Amino acid sequence: MMDKKIPVAVLAATGSVGQRFIQLLDNHPWFEVTALTASDRSAGQLYGDACHWVLPDAMPEWAAKMKVLPTAPESTDAPIVFSALPADTARDAEPLFAQAGKAVFSNASAYRREPDVSILMPEINADQAAIVDIQRKKRGWKGFIVTNSNCTSAGMAVTLKALNDQFKVKRVFAVSLQALSGAGYPGVPSMDIIDNVVPFIGGEEEKLEWESRKMLGRVQGESIQPLDFAVSAHCNRVAVTDGHVVCLSVETESKVSVEEAINCLQSYQAPEVSRDLPFAPKPVIVVRSEKDRPQPRLDRMTGKGMATVVGRVRPDPLFGLKMIVLSHNTIRGAAGGSIYNAELLVNLGKIV
Amino acid sequence: MMDKKIPVAVLAATGSVGQRFIQLLDNHPWFEVTALTASDRSAGQLYGDACHWVLPDAMPEWAAKMKVLPTAPESTDAPIVFSALPADTARDAEPLFAQAGKAVFSNASAYRREPDVSILMPEINADQAAIVDIQRKKRGWKGFIVTNSNCTSAGMAVTLKALNDQFKVKRVFAVSLQALSGAGYPGVPSMDIIDNVVPFIGGEEEKLEWESRKMLGRVQGESIQPLDFAVSAHCNRVAVTDGHVVCLSVETESKVSVEEAINCLQSYQAPEVSRDLPFAPKPVIVVRSEKDRPQPRLDRMTGKGMATVVGRVRPDPLFGLKMIVLSHNTIRGAAGGSIYNAELLVNLGKIV
Amino acid sequence: MMDKKIPVAVLAATGSVGQRFIQLLDNHPWFEVTALTASDRSAGQLYGDACHWVLPDAMPEWAAKMKVLPTAPESTDAPIVFSALPADTARDAEPLFAQAGKAVFSNASAYRREPDVSILMPEINADQAAIVDIQRKKRGWKGFIVTNSNCTSAGMAVTLKALNDQFKVKRVFAVSLQALSGAGYPGVPSMDIIDNVVPFIGGEEEKLEWESRKMLGRVQGESIQPLDFAVSAHCNRVAVTDGHVVCLSVETESKVSVEEAINCLQSYQAPEVSRDLPFAPKPVIVVRSEKDRPQPRLDRMTGKGMATVVGRVRPDPLFGLKMIVLSHNTIRGAAGGSIYNAELLVNLGKIV
Amino acid sequence: MMDKKIPVAVLAATGSVGQRFIQLLDNHPWFEVTALTASDRSAGQLYGDACHWVLPDAMPEWAAKMKVLPTAPESTDAPIVFSALPADTARDAEPLFAQAGKAVFSNASAYRREPDVSILMPEINADQAAIVDIQRKKRGWKGFIVTNSNCTSAGMAVTLKALNDQFKVKRVFAVSLQALSGAGYPGVPSMDIIDNVVPFIGGEEEKLEWESRKMLGRVQGESIQPLDFAVSAHCNRVAVTDGHVVCLSVETESKVSVEEAINCLQSYQAPEVSRDLPFAPKPVIVVRSEKDRPQPRLDRMTGKGMATVVGRVRPDPLFGLKMIVLSHNTIRGAAGGSIYNAELLVNLGKIV
Repeated sequence: MMDKKIPVAVLAATGSVGQRFIQLLDNHPWFEVTALTASDRSAGQLYGDACHWVLPDAMPEWAAKMKVLPTAPESTDAPIVFSALPADTARDAEPLFAQAGKAVFSNASAYRREPDVSILMPEINADQAAIVDIQRKKRGWKGFIVTNSNCTSAGMAVTLKALNDQFKVKRVFAVSLQALSGAGYPGVPSMDIIDNVVPFIGGEEEKLEWESRKMLGRVQGESIQPLDFAVSAHCNRVAVTDGHVVCLSVETESKVSVEEAINCLQSYQAPEVSRDLPFAPKPVIVVRSEKDRPQPRLDRMTGKGMATVVGRVRPDPLFGLKMIVLSHNTIRGAAGGSIYNAELLVNLGKIV
Repeated sequence: MMDKKIPVAVLAATGSVGQRFIQLLDNHPWFEVTALTASDRSAGQLYGDACHWVLPDAMPEWAAKMKVLPTAPESTDAPIVFSALPADTARDAEPLFAQAGKAVFSNASAYRREPDVSILMPEINADQAAIVDIQRKKRGWKGFIVTNSNCTSAGMAVTLKALNDQFKVKRVFAVSLQALSGAGYPGVPSMDIIDNVVPFIGGEEEKLEWESRKMLGRVQGESIQPLDFAVSAHCNRVAVTDGHVVCLSVETESKVSVEEAINCLQSYQAPEVSRDLPFAPKPVIVVRSEKDRPQPRLDRMTGKGMATVVGRVRPDPLFGLKMIVLSHNTIRGAAGGSIYNAELLVNLGKIV
Repeated sequence: MMDKKIPVAVLAATGSVGQRFIQLLDNHPWFEVTALTASDRSAGQLYGDACHWVLPDAMPEWAAKMKVLPTAPESTDAPIVFSALPADTARDAEPLFAQAGKAVFSNASAYRREPDVSILMPEINADQAAIVDIQRKKRGWKGFIVTNSNCTSAGMAVTLKALNDQFKVKRVFAVSLQALSGAGYPGVPSMDIIDNVVPFIGGEEEKLEWESRKMLGRVQGESIQPLDFAVSAHCNRVAVTDGHVVCLSVETESKVSVEEAINCLQSYQAPEVSRDLPFAPKPVIVVRSEKDRPQPRLDRMTGKGMATVVGRVRPDPLFGLKMIVLSHNTIRGAAGGSIYNAELLVNLGKIV
Repeated sequence: MMDKKIPVAVLAATGSVGQRFIQLLDNHPWFEVTALTASDRSAGQLYGDACHWVLPDAMPEWAAKMKVLPTAPESTDAPIVFSALPADTARDAEPLFAQAGKAVFSNASAYRREPDVSILMPEINADQAAIVDIQRKKRGWKGFIVTNSNCTSAGMAVTLKALNDQFKVKRVFAVSLQALSGAGYPGVPSMDIIDNVVPFIGGEEEKLEWESRKMLGRVQGESIQPLDFAVSAHCNRVAVTDGHVVCLSVETESKVSVEEAINCLQSYQAPEVSRDLPFAPKPVIVVRSEKDRPQPRLDRMTGKGMATVVGRVRPDPLFGLKMIVLSHNTIRGAAGGSIYNAELLVNLGKIV
């Protein structure tokens, strides 16, 4: 617990990811929400009136009473800004906050492909945080932008990082079964998913095939150099509220047995600088030994929704190793991930 | 329409696959159901009383009035027997029927691995029907056993057959999203699947990795020689009533473009001997061009549930080709498949 | 089959009810679709391009090739118009068609409360069809408007009509469990209904409490006089694609046993003029004797989706009789109902 | 927190209700689980091996390491026994524990109808606890049996109690939409409930029509005299994991406005002796003002699953008042209810 909490703002606070930010920041030991923004339609109203709250736990009372502000740097003095903006709005709005000296922790995909922007996951690539100094300098910003991973890439990237450290990953097949909350609200129409599967999610396969390579990459010179391995992805939407499942087949450079893989995953540790932060999952990876786990309904809240859960580690006739990976898409894969990122940057002294 | 219909019996007629047989045989142009069998507990009752009917269309009236018989060759004079027996019972019971001169069309997995038993799909391997003569001779049976494919392998085998004919298949990644009806009744508990995915189906991955190779194989000497290619499978259960989806990545020997693959699939034709049978799907493969199809709820009844539906044919960064395959698991992948098999054997004059 | 089919138009043909009209009119023995209209955004395109088809059976080919027209009387010569317009658009547009001499069969609620407009269900109130002459005269129209019932009221009104004929209905409790398709497309967001129930549907309880009284009413002078009985309704949305369930408790003036009620329902017949029309359900009411039926997935297609299915007829400790009523909300309760209405008006010679 | 925790045993600990007992007793301030029993098949194994855990949160470690004991009084010294036994086993087994001096808190329906056994809900009928002295004397037991309410009756009984105190309840219509967990595990087959509603739950309507009258009754002489009002119930199973919804129409002797009813519900307080116990919900009833609440997924965990949530309080054209009631069926309506009962009996000094 800090002496004095750091003020933070949540951009696009009325949407489903914005709501998760508010829920997860409730009683955060370091941060205190002092500003909520939304589109012009909602600005001026009380958050309790403007927001159609869709999460199981009730809206925190402090949030209900806050006035919704316009999404502009002038709205807040907070040095930290969590952005739940949609990608198209984020593209224009987030740089304004960075320019104004804010540390922007973004859930949007808008800047993930920029070479000087990190897709940060403190348990695997804390060293990429160094890129914010380059970004500041290059772009002339007082603040910076850090993004979190795509919701589906998160668990997969953690799993591949652990395996890559010991066995070097070469090729990966990944088939996702993704939860409905990943599409936001109103998102997927119910008539499309009851008694059904939708074997398509716009742009998702491209993200999965590319993002994990950048997340496992390193800062080289002024940009982040992706790690060199190849991914093929199929993405499906299924009738699950929260929790993305990925079926993973992994080819490694060194030969690896099932036992070695399990040991490697179970013993994986976050870098020291990330290990004891409030939102750090401990352990980072939980390996289940049952024949039919992980399952979204039963396992998504493992480690308060921040852990990566792996199961059914077994031989793959083509690539050597097969397994199932689960992570909570709106906690580890969205709002929780950004909060963990902010904790890391505070810990590194990058936020004034 | 035949002059006189051929009498057929359905074994284990009260279960969910048995019910599908009865539904699909209702008004069949060649076959007439003259006997229904079930376990001793049900034998002696009227079928309408003994059976907890779980299909949307009502039980045919002729079936409701039939008396359920014990599962024994003496129960029926019918030369054709459709077996919906569970694998363990099938192992002992089906040979008795074959010995007694019946043509047994089995939905059970019990004999699929025997080298002299075909996993028959008339649209792809009608030539394997020849094995019944070898089987008769070797085993001293007057009748024979023909099995249908595993419900998940069916659509995949058809797709791979078409591609293999033109481009030779080398390696395949297959991830299934399987419907609940595949587990029979009562099958999967609802608490296991509402808001959930179960990433495990006992024995299914092994079947998928092996069966399609045998289905694409040929009779050589006294046995069926599997085709030589490699498959890696992950199998998942999802909250869908009927219709199995398979995400497929395929590596072929000859280079193939998306357009060539689509043409190849669309123009695929069943062997002439199978092409005009009552249950023959026409076309065998329907290729959808929408970005998000096939989907189980919308596409499973394509070709009265006998067609293989393929969509999202696109490049795969690792194996060259990716696509989605859907087929109806209790029609093409179970009862309908066995009926089509029987039609083929009648057409070949193998049934006296 | 008629010598020459009557041309018909479908208004708002691209929406989910419009799609049902097209599906049900495919191969209709009397009607031939000659015009499809939609909003200005879609007008000019081919129907196959403009429409995001969401029904399980494929779009009829003839429809795919038709050009979508603007929703205006000038768009078509057809004397019969099926309207799938939303209520607000229907209010302005439907009278224009009626004025232009068209017989408008509307699925919208816009005119249901007008005293000179019938909520027509040929199996129970064919005599109300006479109101179209009064309507023409009063409003100076060459054509007329006939509406179908609200999707939830339909099965309940049929059931109450049969009981009222013999025992006179006094008071009714009705609790609905309504399917998702009733909300159109995109309709209910999936996050609102997976693992959930929504105990509210805007305006629905008021409709249920009022419409059935009008449907059981009679033409008196220049208006339809509702029957005098009282209804209390609760309406819920559940995770079902098609088929509305209503739990019904009924108090009658004459005492009635369960057996008498079952006989009354089973023997109910449509008025002679409606009995043999192409879309007439035969029987009108199917009474199931199982302890746990009707169920939406198993029973909604009874009588091609036009029958009312009743089950669990049993004593009610407060009102005398309890039962479960099921009817298909987008067939009997929407498009199919309007087609049946048009058949009746043709049969009565009211359409030139 | 007590100086020394009271040892408790859980009977039938491996089933789904038994699991809830273990989950809810984890870190209980007064109770410590010292014995777990199950059927002979499981006895002797470690609980972690014998139990197929189906709850989202992981099995507590202390439970996993306990040895499963036979279900017999000799198995434990604990003075308090929580019974998750099925009704038929409970009938024989629970009296043996009571005779041996145990305070048996039962979730089974076996003894609910006995005039000297209370269906106890501390927030509404704490005075019924006095019946245990009569029971002991009459039956010659050293211990006693107290039952909790049926899962569906719980929320309804709380609501009716509050209304009855001020306005006297006369007649009630109740239609339930019940969750799957109420049927235990494996319980409802998934094929019966996906895209479906089952409008029947064996014995449930009778329980609903009778139990709430006993719960609102009083000890008179040697038995509990039910309150005199009439209930009509319809019970439905829907595709929801946890949380029973009841649509309620209530007729009261005194006229009551919607505002008065809301005030009455919101201000309802548990008797003083029950008010501050660890499992006491505060407030007892939460009234939601949104037009579409309560909903199971969003509201079932209100008050840690122990509160009764009421919404949509509105006029009823027949009975005066309509509303929606939600309560968590396996917490307030099962294991949590029994724990609250045990707390009350401890507080009353009835447990040595």
